[in-house]
Amino acid sequence: MPDIYMDHISANPVLPEVQQAMLPYLGERVGNPSSLHKWGQAARDDVEAAREKVAALIGADPSEIIFTSCGTESNNLAVKGLALANEKKGRHILCSAVEHTSVLSSAKALKRVGFETELVPVDRFGRVSPEDVQKRIRPDTVLVSVMQANNEIGTIEPIAEISKVTKERGVLFHTDAVASAGNIPVNVKTLGADALSLSANQFYGPPGAAALWLRQGTRLTPLLDGGFQEENRRAGLENFPAVIGMGKAAELALADMPHRLVYLQGLRDKMIQIIPSIVPHTVQTGHPSERLPGHASFCIGFIEGEGMLLWLDDSGIAASSVSACTSKALKTSHVLLATGMETALAQGSVVFSLGIKNTEEDVDYVFEMLPRIVDKLRKMSPTYAKFLKGVV
Amino acid sequence: MPDIYMDHISANPVLPEVQQAMLPYLGERVGNPSSLHKWGQAARDDVEAAREKVAALIGADPSEIIFTSCGTESNNLAVKGLALANEKKGRHILCSAVEHTSVLSSAKALKRVGFETELVPVDRFGRVSPEDVQKRIRPDTVLVSVMQANNEIGTIEPIAEISKVTKERGVLFHTDAVASAGNIPVNVKTLGADALSLSANQFYGPPGAAALWLRQGTRLTPLLDGGFQEENRRAGLENFPAVIGMGKAAELALADMPHRLVYLQGLRDKMIQIIPSIVPHTVQTGHPSERLPGHASFCIGFIEGEGMLLWLDDSGIAASSVSACTSKALKTSHVLLATGMETALAQGSVVFSLGIKNTEEDVDYVFEMLPRIVDKLRKMSPTYAKFLKGVV
Repeated sequence: MPDIYMDHISANPVLPEVQQAMLPYLGERVGNPSSLHKWGQAARDDVEAAREKVAALIGADPSEIIFTSCGTESNNLAVKGLALANEKKGRHILCSAVEHTSVLSSAKALKRVGFETELVPVDRFGRVSPEDVQKRIRPDTVLVSVMQANNEIGTIEPIAEISKVTKERGVLFHTDAVASAGNIPVNVKTLGADALSLSANQFYGPPGAAALWLRQGTRLTPLLDGGFQEENRRAGLENFPAVIGMGKAAELALADMPHRLVYLQGLRDKMIQIIPSIVPHTVQTGHPSERLPGHASFCIGFIEGEGMLLWLDDSGIAASSVSACTSKALKTSHVLLATGMETALAQGSVVFSLGIKNTEEDVDYVFEMLPRIVDKLRKMSPTYAKFLKGVV
Repeated sequence: MPDIYMDHISANPVLPEVQQAMLPYLGERVGNPSSLHKWGQAARDDVEAAREKVAALIGADPSEIIFTSCGTESNNLAVKGLALANEKKGRHILCSAVEHTSVLSSAKALKRVGFETELVPVDRFGRVSPEDVQKRIRPDTVLVSVMQANNEIGTIEPIAEISKVTKERGVLFHTDAVASAGNIPVNVKTLGADALSLSANQFYGPPGAAALWLRQGTRLTPLLDGGFQEENRRAGLENFPAVIGMGKAAELALADMPHRLVYLQGLRDKMIQIIPSIVPHTVQTGHPSERLPGHASFCIGFIEGEGMLLWLDDSGIAASSVSACTSKALKTSHVLLATGMETALAQGSVVFSLGIKNTEEDVDYVFEMLPRIVDKLRKMSPTYAKFLKGVV
């Protein structure tokens, strides 16, 4: 049985070159980057070199990079840190309806200190319209947060256009680029936001390293208080092995991006074209073309995501789903609902997120197995039986 | 020239066995522990096995372990999370005067939402008296935070005794055990606190993994909002390679503790006895016997810590100092001041924190070099010249 991993949106393997860069600091080489001695200074030099590489990946200045422990921390730091530091402006926050839970929950957590969150709707492809943002900006709007690419449906948002609106209105703008940075070209100079979250593991770096890009001069309240690390913006011992790995991964992602883009878009488009044609009652989710390069997502009628994942797993294919039962939230994906997907169909969600090691053969194997699995599941579905009888 | 690392309180090397445990997840092995497929479930199993090992190190139940990214995050989560979740009780927080900045700054950050912090003094050894805690507990005291062992002066606090007081008065008690857990026996059942912070790197685990032990049933407001990881107490992708490394390091620390304790106490006591006798005008800081096993700390008169560190470094010895110039805070250590150390003497702080790879020869080499370095520095000191003339 093959061993096909197509769940890169959940976690990525770490590239051998990245592991090699980290290994010295996971052994005898030691040194807190804040220490004065040569061991510490060597670690400091390597952390700063990594900061330059991460900055280069997104066209930023190294001083604007704050290392954090994960994408969720970056999003918490951005939403809470920007809102709290600038609350004199007001306490109204605008988020798109399809943001990651770490953004939505951060905004929600601010309710206890008097903030109010308003959701900006999306179209059936999951796209936010800049006009919809503009209409909702109030004098007391302190922050707009719209993600660059959605992890559940792959849709890429018009960040540069939204950024024009927020800039015009003098409102801070954060974009969650965790799913996109390292996978599509990201340049903060052309995007024009004030803060951007990114995570190493999404581009084959290690778990445990992520960053928040913060435009020079932007006020931010830290989330973690204590030492003077990261220029007083994030206290705590830097996870220097992982940060150094993130630097290497950023360097490789930047160099290899043109190739990765073309390769993954090719595999993705094949899945997007073929799967709905070989699996009846299937709709693609998200935008047909403005989407993450390796991201192919669907809702398959008359089946339930969890069962599908388990049967796929049993056939040697690792995929993901955003249906209710596969998440501890036990409710239908807020992203799919925001695109107008009906709840029943949303239960049959499946996401194939491809990586650079996936092959044409992997994709062909999915084409072979998926229809069989869907057939098998539908045979057990009372709803499908009713449908065949014309009852539903 | 030798290469002697005696700054284990700042950062520790990662043991080879720990690196070996981590390596599979820093390569092709992939899988978000929240994913349903076998890759994810394998990662989940390994994370839960690590949780059991970390729990075993401190005599806790695995369900009480919350993994975080660093000791600073654990302390922020404990202080802010416990205070905010229980603020109905009141908004008065008691911290010892020698707490780590991550505890003191977390308490200070709560000022903006109406909390008040009161410091409990320490004696000249840096010890908190349980009576001093008791006297300061008010009806609106919501949290007491006293560290188990101090990183700057090595002193071990009477946590079990303080815990009796807080329990009697029905006040939550957090202890920062970052410097102690894994280095001295820690058992939450006998210590009796409600929350305890620990960090992997302090016992030869990787940077990037730490934990907060939280007594079952204790209410806590999360610091990071988002997904359902860590039973809703800490959102974000688990740093699973580092968490798995932390598990291995905990297992090794527990098994090897009797040996490590005796070995490091021996080296430490030799330094504590000999250094003041071969370097005039030197006082040991912290408690003479109730101190961390590998921790030998001093204040040396008529010299300045930064110069001493650089000359030690130049002689192949990595140590640390808590004098003003070696920290970005640019102020005299609050810990030394709290013990009544005079400011001038506090400038000559030096900490030798020993690790299991240090040898008798390393210690003897320090005895050889330190007096020479101190002599050299004093020759350049105008204050020392005045002292010799009897002017000061």
